[in-house]
This record gives sequence, structure tokens and C-alpha cells, in this order.
Amino acid sequence: MIDRGRIACERLRAKLATAEEAASLITSGTTIGMSGFTGAGYPKAVPLALAARIEAAHAAGDSFRVRIWTGASTGPELDGALAKADGIEFRLPYNSDPIAREKINRGEMDYFDMHLSQVAPMAWQGFLGPLDTAVIEVAGIRADGSLIPSSSVGNNKTWIDQASQVILEVNSWQSPALEGMHDIYYGTALPPNRIPIPLVRPDDRIGETSLRCDPEKIVAIVETDAPDRNLPFSPPDATARAIAGHLLEFLRHEVARGRLPPSLLPLQSGVGNIANAVLAGLLDSPFEAMTAYTEVIQDGMLDLLAAGKLRMASATSFSLSPEAAAALNADMDRFRNSIILRPQEISNHPEIIRRLGCIAMNGLIEADIYGNVNSTHVMGSRIQNGIGGSGDFARNAYVSIFVTPSTAKKGQISAIVPMASHVDHINQDVQVIVTEQGLADLRGLSPKQRAKVIIENCAHPDFRPALADYFRRAREHSYGLQTPCLPAEALSWHQRYIETGTMRF
Amino acid sequence: MIDRGRIACERLRAKLATAEEAASLITSGTTIGMSGFTGAGYPKAVPLALAARIEAAHAAGDSFRVRIWTGASTGPELDGALAKADGIEFRLPYNSDPIAREKINRGEMDYFDMHLSQVAPMAWQGFLGPLDTAVIEVAGIRADGSLIPSSSVGNNKTWIDQASQVILEVNSWQSPALEGMHDIYYGTALPPNRIPIPLVRPDDRIGETSLRCDPEKIVAIVETDAPDRNLPFSPPDATARAIAGHLLEFLRHEVARGRLPPSLLPLQSGVGNIANAVLAGLLDSPFEAMTAYTEVIQDGMLDLLAAGKLRMASATSFSLSPEAAAALNADMDRFRNSIILRPQEISNHPEIIRRLGCIAMNGLIEADIYGNVNSTHVMGSRIQNGIGGSGDFARNAYVSIFVTPSTAKKGQISAIVPMASHVDHINQDVQVIVTEQGLADLRGLSPKQRAKVIIENCAHPDFRPALADYFRRAREHSYGLQTPCLPAEALSWHQRYIETGTMRF
Repeated sequence: MIDRGRIACERLRAKLATAEEAASLITSGTTIGMSGFTGAGYPKAVPLALAARIEAAHAAGDSFRVRIWTGASTGPELDGALAKADGIEFRLPYNSDPIAREKINRGEMDYFDMHLSQVAPMAWQGFLGPLDTAVIEVAGIRADGSLIPSSSVGNNKTWIDQASQVILEVNSWQSPALEGMHDIYYGTALPPNRIPIPLVRPDDRIGETSLRCDPEKIVAIVETDAPDRNLPFSPPDATARAIAGHLLEFLRHEVARGRLPPSLLPLQSGVGNIANAVLAGLLDSPFEAMTAYTEVIQDGMLDLLAAGKLRMASATSFSLSPEAAAALNADMDRFRNSIILRPQEISNHPEIIRRLGCIAMNGLIEADIYGNVNSTHVMGSRIQNGIGGSGDFARNAYVSIFVTPSTAKKGQISAIVPMASHVDHINQDVQVIVTEQGLADLRGLSPKQRAKVIIENCAHPDFRPALADYFRRAREHSYGLQTPCLPAEALSWHQRYIETGTMRF
Repeated sequence: MIDRGRIACERLRAKLATAEEAASLITSGTTIGMSGFTGAGYPKAVPLALAARIEAAHAAGDSFRVRIWTGASTGPELDGALAKADGIEFRLPYNSDPIAREKINRGEMDYFDMHLSQVAPMAWQGFLGPLDTAVIEVAGIRADGSLIPSSSVGNNKTWIDQASQVILEVNSWQSPALEGMHDIYYGTALPPNRIPIPLVRPDDRIGETSLRCDPEKIVAIVETDAPDRNLPFSPPDATARAIAGHLLEFLRHEVARGRLPPSLLPLQSGVGNIANAVLAGLLDSPFEAMTAYTEVIQDGMLDLLAAGKLRMASATSFSLSPEAAAALNADMDRFRNSIILRPQEISNHPEIIRRLGCIAMNGLIEADIYGNVNSTHVMGSRIQNGIGGSGDFARNAYVSIFVTPSTAKKGQISAIVPMASHVDHINQDVQVIVTEQGLADLRGLSPKQRAKVIIENCAHPDFRPALADYFRRAREHSYGLQTPCLPAEALSWHQRYIETGTMRF
């Protein structure tokens, strides 16, 4: 039910509009900065109305396409609806919507997947072109006109600052207790005027709890009551639990050797099955008073917070199952002092990640025997989601860990290949690789030393002999022997999969 | 001639030793952290004596090999002599010595080329193993025992701090007027105790002018009088001048559009022919009061400083021709207030590079049509030098520019290829590519949009039709169309070069 009290600024109530009226203010060929980071905090009414408008235009024989910038992925009412309407000409910086993914991989939509920390600064620098409209979901509007952010922050500050006009969605579904949880830092600048970001602990607050917005720029306010798109939680399977086991053993070992403090260092973790297994493993671990400095807060992080194992978590968004989202919404007050949501240029800032010394844990599609990681492109060409924040964290982490099952597609694809068909993380940014088979500690190793450990510890036994054979022959016949490579064969596993549906011989 | 006054600390004069005596304190199987960054400031006597000792051991049938860490590349008396003696088991983080390169590419020496900013922190974190001995060239020793750094700083602070024993070379060849030019920052820490690095302008001084060293750790001091290895300067050819012309036009355009201030932003520039051409072009440019925040100061930077176009330069080392080095040594006082030499963890720190908004200009071996850059591996396997600091700068720069002639090996190799045979800089970290053919401005473009611009603007006309043909066929037959790729053909240009000596059809 719409909560009429969410808009406490009387003057702004005059701008109330329907989603259709708001969408009519957007014209073809323009660029729209939307809120949203994973399925949280994205606008849910105006994009649908815009999609309807685009479909009507197309039906009338008119062209109508727009350029869409967001925080990261969003929900079906945004990416799904607009892609289905053939309304997105260009998209950045991240997508995981299946309809949009298909359009991208059919070559029907231009997509630039960017380091998430760089989106706001590069937009501000003018490198991405002008921003016409911001469409931002908020949890409310204060009496002074400042905006209470929703369940994600993303690039909202930058979109509001940079756009010529602003459309707001005020979503009554979002808990009013979100107010006070955010930390919006207004200290960024263009060089040569940048200064140090004064954050030295994950729980430091360096900004404001609300978003500033010039009321003159607000052209429409739409009231909604619609849930975030929350993906169901799947309990970890045996593979995920095995990976988590190896990883937790590594962390215990590092603490024992004095290379990590007993409460570890701030955790960064991706989403999904394996991440959840790792977080579940931390519930039973000896580590206490842990912290997280990460992009998203998933179910496992809430469990760690509730159990008191995690002292606090800093992120830019939630990424929860429907059950966890409902539980959080009902109990937001309890978590407000242990969760901070920040703009993604701060949650993912290289300066902060290196200073805090984050433990980065990210997934991958494939790694080659030298530890170069492909996070994005299946068979080198078909994009899955995007690089997201993995590059921000992997290069600047205290230790950069990548996790993956050793095979995919029921064993037809090896996650360890002779040569990555696309590189998102160069071997220098990959210190540890973990599969259910074991863990490869690559720190301080040369490429050939790395290959030996990765093949022996991480590859699936079904593919290990073929990898060892390739590596042996490459050492005999390669043009140079720093990183032995047989160009005529290096990508043959991918070609075989494309032709036969399996990488197996 | 040895200047006996260089060691002002009487107590330490008792540790004077010959190079042979000092080398005898180093044992087989240990790790040595040496000074040196490019051909500047590396130890010149102890490594030679160590090489002789190793050769004698090998002649006697004994094994003797060591692990060598440095700042970056060094000189023939260090990498050349030790590699020739078969004395290096493992090397990091950068090498450009031809004898060592051959050993590496024959698989006889393990080599880990690292991001130069990460060497000191990772060594401190214990990720690279223990450091036994530091061998550091200095310009002098003050009465209080503190060390006056030489013509490079590199990782000297960290080697001295971390090593069990320290051997010093006091080189009288280095100008005594170096004293006061350095800025050694002692504010770094291990997480969770890291704080912001308080540097907000390239000319900020945040540290001390000398290196601290526990006198108890010093086991030998060797006096030398030996020149840095300075490479001759080759004047820019027509290709380099054409590249510089395109790049300067781009900078003028960015200033005109308000995306760069009239004095630009701090410049980072690699070394070599093209870099010198760009710097020479800046001499005649409209830009005034420029600054540099970079790794090395080369001839062209000194010219810009002397002409007053460059207000100041921050680096970690000099990389000069013999003439420029002699001129600088004779005139060091003049430059001392406009040059600051820092530890490489500061000169290359992501936090600082992003804060200052550096304009990064680096060379490459090849780029693919999507803008992924290979800076290190010829034909994907044979290492040329190493990634060096290019990753520190490219990912964190305000704008990341890569420059290259469009062909190599007298036109037999195309610098633009269907797929990079090794990736050091992912396409997201490459905003501009410049060849003598033209400039590709890749900001805000999707992979397919990038390919079109790179092929049209940067590829050599002899290879352009074949690249366009590959790209067209890839768009028709690729598994996915985000980054079209034909795995069976993508590396065929490299294979053809290996088999026939040319990439031409």
C-alpha cells in the first residue's frame, strides 16, 4: 500500500505524477541513469511505462531507443522490460538480465561492461557522454527535500548530480527504517582537486545519510509499492561445501602463520552458491569480530551479522532471497547500526580496498593454467554478466581469491583450460584459486610454477592428464618459455566445445 | 675517484669491506633484495663479486644460485653478470637484461613479473618468502647513520627493513647534490593499520630525505666509483613523431572540451623513442606549468624542466642517456627543487594515481581489435621485459593511453591483431590507442564499437583488410556476439609468424 507519509516535503508533492506521465518526459535517443544494484533499489514503474511507450512507438513505425546506465544489474521491470521492447541501444556497466543478455549476444544491443568503481568518476569526467535523465528509486523524501536512499545506493548520487532532469520513484515497500543506514560521501572531486577519502575502518561514516537533489531538477515523482526482485536462495551443494572447506583451511593457515589477524581482514564476497557456502562456513569458524567491505550483502552475511560473528558490513546494496528480504524488512532496526550502504565509487574504490586490505573472493568462468581468469565471456565471445567490481577488488585486495567448481555443464567444460578465451583478471591479480579439488596458492610463483600447482591442485581429474600433456608439450615447443603457449592449440578446447558440445577428447 | 667523505658516520666506517668480502656473506639458496630501478642506483661491485664467487663454485662442482628481488631492471653488472654465471634461480619483479631474458625464455630461470606498486607491500605481507640480504647503493651515509639515497629509490626502504642483513655500496660517482631530492615515506603499514597517504599534489613532500637503517644490520660497506648504466638516446623517427602528433592533438582537444585543465594533469610516461617524441612535442605545445607523476625521469622530462614547461616531476628513478646523466650530475642543484624521488610503492600507488588523475602513456607489444593489450609476451610466450608499473597506471589513470608503431619487424608483425596472444591490460583499462596511422578514442564504447575504431584508425593499411575481414566473419560465426571471436583462427596470425617469420598472408 502506498504510504502517503513518505514524501515529507510539501513543495515536492506538487510534482506527483503517474509512471506514464513521468515516462513521457523521456525522449528517444537520450541517456538515462537509473538506480539499482543487483535486484535492489531499482525503479519499478517508470521503466515499465517507458517500455510500453517504446512498444507503442515501434508499433506505429517510429524508432525509439535509449541508452541505459545503472549501478549494476537490476530487475525484470527495468532491463527485462526495456530489452524485450527493443528499447535499449546501449547499456552500461553491468547486466545479468536474461532477455538483455540474449539481445547482447545476438549483437542487437551495445554493452560496455565497466569496472564498477570507475562508472561515476568517468561519467563526471565527461568520458561517457551527457546524461539526460535520472530515474531513481528512494525510500522517502525528507521535509527539507533531501532523499532517503532505497535498498541500494549504486551511482545514484552521480546520476542525480549529472542529469539534466530527475524522476523519482518513492517506494513504500522499502522499510522506512532504512533511514540512517546510508553513508553518502560528497567529498569526491575532479582532479586536480581530489583529496584522500577519510575512511580507515569499514565502519567509518564519512558522509550523509541522505542524497542531495536540486528540487528544480525534479520533473516527476511517482509513488510505488513494489518489492525488490530477490532471487531464491539455494543451499550449498557438496561441491560448494568442498570449496568453502579448502578456503577456510587456507584462512586458518594464514592466521596461524601470522599473515592474517585472528579477526581476518574485511571480507569481499560475490553472490551465489559458493559464496553462500563460504559465508556459512565462517559461521562455524574460529574467526570472531569479522568485518565486510564489499559490494552486496547476501543472506549469508545477514546470518553472520545475526550470529555476532560479523561485527559490521559495508556495501552498496542488498542481494537477498525473498525470505531474507522479508526478514530484514521486518527487523531493519536491528541491523541499522551494523550495516552501512555507500555509493559504489566508495564501496569499490581502489584507494579504500587497498588501504583496508580486503580479502577478495570472486567466482570465475574459467582460469588458464597460468592463472589468468575469465569472469565474463563463455567461449571467449558470449557474455554471461560482466566484470562488475571484481577488477576493483582483485587488483587491490590483500589477497585475491577466485573460486569455481572444476567443471561446468555436467562435466563437459573444464574450468581450467590451456589458455583463457578472454582475460578479465591477469595472473598477477590472482593469488589463490580454489576448486572442489583443492587450493592453489600462487603467491610469489613464476608462470610455470603456477601451472604446475593449478593443474595438480585445481583441475578435475578427467581433464588433468590433458592439461599436463599440453603443458609438457608447450614447454618443449613454445616460441618462448616464460609462459609456454602453443597458439595453434591453445584455444582448441573451446573450439571443440563449440563444435561438439564438450571439451572432452 | 672514491670520495672518502661520503661516509660521515665514523662508527660505520668500521664496516668497510671489499666487494669480495661482502659477497662472501651471501650464501647459496638465499634471497637478496637489490637496489636499482632501470639503469640507476643499482649496486655495481657486490653483484659482480658474487657472480665471480658463483662461477668459482660452479667450476668446483658446487651448486650456487640465489633469488634476486630488485626495484625494476638494473644493469649488466647485476642482472647480466649473475645471469651469465647461471646464478639466478628466481627473479622479480622486472627484467630487461638481454642475458637474463634469454635464460628466462629458455626456461632456465624462474621469473615473476609483478605490478611494481605491489612488490613492497606483498614482501612485507610475507607473500614472497623471507628476505635474507639487502644490497643497496647509496650516495652517502650521514653522521647519524641515515642513508642518502642514490639515483633511484625503488624498494630500498622495504629491502632494508625486511632483510636480515644489509650490505651497502657507497658510490662516489653519484652526485652529492642528490641529498635532499628524495622523499622517503615511512607512513605505510600492514592492514588493518593503513591510513590515507597524505599526498594530494605531485610536489607534496610527505617523508624524509634519507633512508633509515638499523646499524646493527649492516654487515659490510663497500666504496665504489662507478657510473649508472645509461642507454644512449635515439632521436625520434618519423613514426614516433607521427604518434606524438596524434597524441598532442588529442590532449589539445580534451583541453578545448574542458575535460582536461590547460596545464593538463600529472603525466606518466614510459621510456624509449616514442615517449621521447611525445615529451619533445610537449616542449612546443601550448601547455604550461605541467607536472609529472611517473616512474622514471628521462631525457625529455629534463628538457621540459629546463625549459620551464614542466613545473616539477615526481618519480622513483632516473633513466637517462649518458649525456643527460652527465649534464644532470653537473647541474643537480638546479633540478633539486623540481624533482622528487620516492619509493616505488608511492610513485606507483593506485591511491595516488587515481587521486591525482594521471595521464598514463605506455607502450605495448600488441593490441587486439577490442583493445586488450599485451605489453610483455612476444607470440604469447616469449617475455620481452615485464608488466612493470603499466598496470598500476593504466587502471587508475584519468585517461589511459597506449602508443605503438602499427607494425614491428620491418612490417612483418602487425601490432593490431585479431586476439592478443597474452593480456596485460584488459580493454576496460585502455581508453586510447595511438599508432602512426591515427588515434582510437575508445571511451564509452562497446567491444564491437571499439573494434571498428581500432581497425580503421590504428591498424596498418597492409593488415587492415585482413582485420576487417576477420571481424566481419567473427560477427557472422561467433558463439556469442558481445566480443566476436573465432577460437580456431584468433591466434593464427601468431602461429603464422612462428612458422613463416611473417604475419602477412
